[in-house]
Amino acid sequence: MPEPLRSFDELALGQEFDFGSFRMELAEILDFARRYDPQPFHTDEAAAKAGIFGGIIASGLHTQAAAFGHIIRTGWVERVSLGGTEQVVRWPAPVRPGDEIALSARVEELIPSRSKPDRGVARIRYTGRRVADGVTVLDILGTHFLKR
Amino acid sequence: MPEPLRSFDELALGQEFDFGSFRMELAEILDFARRYDPQPFHTDEAAAKAGIFGGIIASGLHTQAAAFGHIIRTGWVERVSLGGTEQVVRWPAPVRPGDEIALSARVEELIPSRSKPDRGVARIRYTGRRVADGVTVLDILGTHFLKR
Repeated sequence: MPEPLRSFDELALGQEFDFGSFRMELAEILDFARRYDPQPFHTDEAAAKAGIFGGIIASGLHTQAAAFGHIIRTGWVERVSLGGTEQVVRWPAPVRPGDEIALSARVEELIPSRSKPDRGVARIRYTGRRVADGVTVLDILGTHFLKR
Repeated sequence: MPEPLRSFDELALGQEFDFGSFRMELAEILDFARRYDPQPFHTDEAAAKAGIFGGIIASGLHTQAAAFGHIIRTGWVERVSLGGTEQVVRWPAPVRPGDEIALSARVEELIPSRSKPDRGVARIRYTGRRVADGVTVLDILGTHFLKR
């Protein structure tokens, strides 16, 4: 796991980080979807089996949230995070119950704030790949405010 | 509430829809954040009060998911949804416990599939405004596959 960042200024363009992996379990897939994305292919095993995906798939919102929670829990941005303003999220392939997803990050853009010298904006691309076959299932370009 | 869509072909560019409102309650803000975005300004009332936001704010991922769940529950896309592939999400202002958020949608782009004549891609912009003051707190450009 990466060491906790102490400042926006420790980041460099093109820098890459490895966050290990997390697993998407059926019970949590169903629980998340019942609250936030109650569509049959996320919540109903029989309907999902008969539908276009051939079985339950995770809500993309869940994969996004689980990946973000995993990264926050590593403590990487704990000392520097001032919140985020934007995410561009893509789900190139479905995530199924039991899938283990490896997460990595790459620093894409660094913009020191002009108006507030104590912070900067970092654009970081997070990529989630299914460990079993290497297929990319999640691609997030996140915009973070970070302390300097 | 909008009538349930029967086909991608019922949508027209520039069409607007009103989805009423939903409320972000403290207990759920804390619960979501503890699972998916455990940063002090989302999870710890005392730390949040002393921090840059002056109190608990909802995880942007939570506002995004709650808005999406609200729309799914209206049944609008129940007959036509084949899932989504991308969202561009912006959080222009923080959401605080008790905030009621009004949701509307606007059809921005419609692309009938060339390879699969039974479906089309719709790009729809969802806007969430705090009812108390009209401030936009959520802006999602979603990409959906819809049945024809």
